[in-house]
Amino acid sequence: MTHTIAFLGPAGTYAESAALACSTWLQDEYGLDSILRPYPSIAQTLQAAARGETHLAVAPVENSIEGSVTVTLDTVWKLDSLQIQKALVLPISHALLSRVEDTDQIKTIYSHPQALAQCQGWLAQMLPNAQLVATNSTTEAVQHLELKQHSAAIASRRAATLYNIPVLAHPINDHPDNCTRFWVVGLEPSLSGTHTSLAFSFPANLPGALAKALHIFAERTINLSRIESRPTKRSLGEYLFFADIEANVKDEPAQSALEELKSCTETLKIFGSYSIQTIAAPLALL
Amino acid sequence: MTHTIAFLGPAGTYAESAALACSTWLQDEYGLDSILRPYPSIAQTLQAAARGETHLAVAPVENSIEGSVTVTLDTVWKLDSLQIQKALVLPISHALLSRVEDTDQIKTIYSHPQALAQCQGWLAQMLPNAQLVATNSTTEAVQHLELKQHSAAIASRRAATLYNIPVLAHPINDHPDNCTRFWVVGLEPSLSGTHTSLAFSFPANLPGALAKALHIFAERTINLSRIESRPTKRSLGEYLFFADIEANVKDEPAQSALEELKSCTETLKIFGSYSIQTIAAPLALL
Repeated sequence: MTHTIAFLGPAGTYAESAALACSTWLQDEYGLDSILRPYPSIAQTLQAAARGETHLAVAPVENSIEGSVTVTLDTVWKLDSLQIQKALVLPISHALLSRVEDTDQIKTIYSHPQALAQCQGWLAQMLPNAQLVATNSTTEAVQHLELKQHSAAIASRRAATLYNIPVLAHPINDHPDNCTRFWVVGLEPSLSGTHTSLAFSFPANLPGALAKALHIFAERTINLSRIESRPTKRSLGEYLFFADIEANVKDEPAQSALEELKSCTETLKIFGSYSIQTIAAPLALL
Repeated sequence: MTHTIAFLGPAGTYAESAALACSTWLQDEYGLDSILRPYPSIAQTLQAAARGETHLAVAPVENSIEGSVTVTLDTVWKLDSLQIQKALVLPISHALLSRVEDTDQIKTIYSHPQALAQCQGWLAQMLPNAQLVATNSTTEAVQHLELKQHSAAIASRRAATLYNIPVLAHPINDHPDNCTRFWVVGLEPSLSGTHTSLAFSFPANLPGALAKALHIFAERTINLSRIESRPTKRSLGEYLFFADIEANVKDEPAQSALEELKSCTETLKIFGSYSIQTIAAPLALL
């Protein structure tokens, strides 16, 4: 059976590289063939998997420099049906793509806001007067080059090859150790692997609630590898928390920890247990 | 003596409304006159105050819908000299500004990424085919209208009045309880007020470190009103944490809590104690 994988397209985005890595994982692990389906936004990518329109969706959740991709967290919380099947960590290496002959001629630079943010130091130094324009994806940025003179895009070298645009500079990200973690999500229950992701909220204004919640894991020596707060969108100062723990949801002591956590939270959502795979820099892809 | 206040300009931004509220506070509290100085980015606004080029800077730190303004947190951490003198909470109410006669004619919509995000539901329903273009401020978005036909901007009604552009729809934010907290920062030590902001990092891979840090406050019944993680930008999975506590830095038990915290963190930065003022919706301003 051929699996379908939704990703933020079109072809040439970093999300496509993650979807290709997901495809390799499905083949290696389960002998499954897969095809990739592009969607125009991260939210629509996740909704496709939640509706069962695709078997899986690949979405960025965290970058080592810019932090959380909040739309992914907010959408996964809201949809409330997706389980994380796998996490993939990809190195990110940005290039400046343009048909101009000299960088001095660049007046406008297009890219996804995260990519613009990850290159802000380089841009401020090298192209301080260029106007920065946000696009829905790095590939959409490349497509603007056809329409506008004196423009450049920040995207992967794979996008440069796919769309046949010269690379003027590479790498241009401010931090060399730039990588992004992607979640592979789907409707299947996900119960194997050493990492579990969850999210929870507390009854309003409960002092010490978060300290108590974290203590539940600490006293069982379950390591918390990440915690992230997001607004509940009800009122300023009310949060929900996303947490990653280094434990499998079926094992003791995680089971008893989650049961205790349930009793002191307002809502508790468990997004499954999964393994994390770090993808070595595939130069042809990035 | 006249005080200078840096803000993300030009005139008509929500940050200007916050700077005007700051000006009122300086007059009421200290009998000080002040003048406002616009800067083109949030980072430059904060750098102006850190260099002593202005007495104060006003910068957004958190929105009730979209969460943290990460550039403010990252810049305040990096500059390491600014103290929070006051926090101001402003209601945010977005309007659609355009010279077109009918919304059907709108092909491009300009605004700050946070404003675009806060209106994403309304935009998807009412103008699903319009291209969204990010600008550095909501006022910069308004200035694009002169250059491009069939365009609209998302900005405040104050901006509509200042730049004489018709308001086609208001309010268009997806959540009615939309408000933003701004920090007023400067180089003066800040020691009065009931709220204290701090940030800290831990030695790499210290299991249970955050639980222990939060427990320091919980066992003293010091309420933690907010916690936010940010990447250290060294490697994926390494974080620093911003926290707000409901206590004055000079008082016991906060003093002993901060001393204990210092002994279990790698770096601890204290950004001062201050009071929070909620600004009632000044219709002329917003």
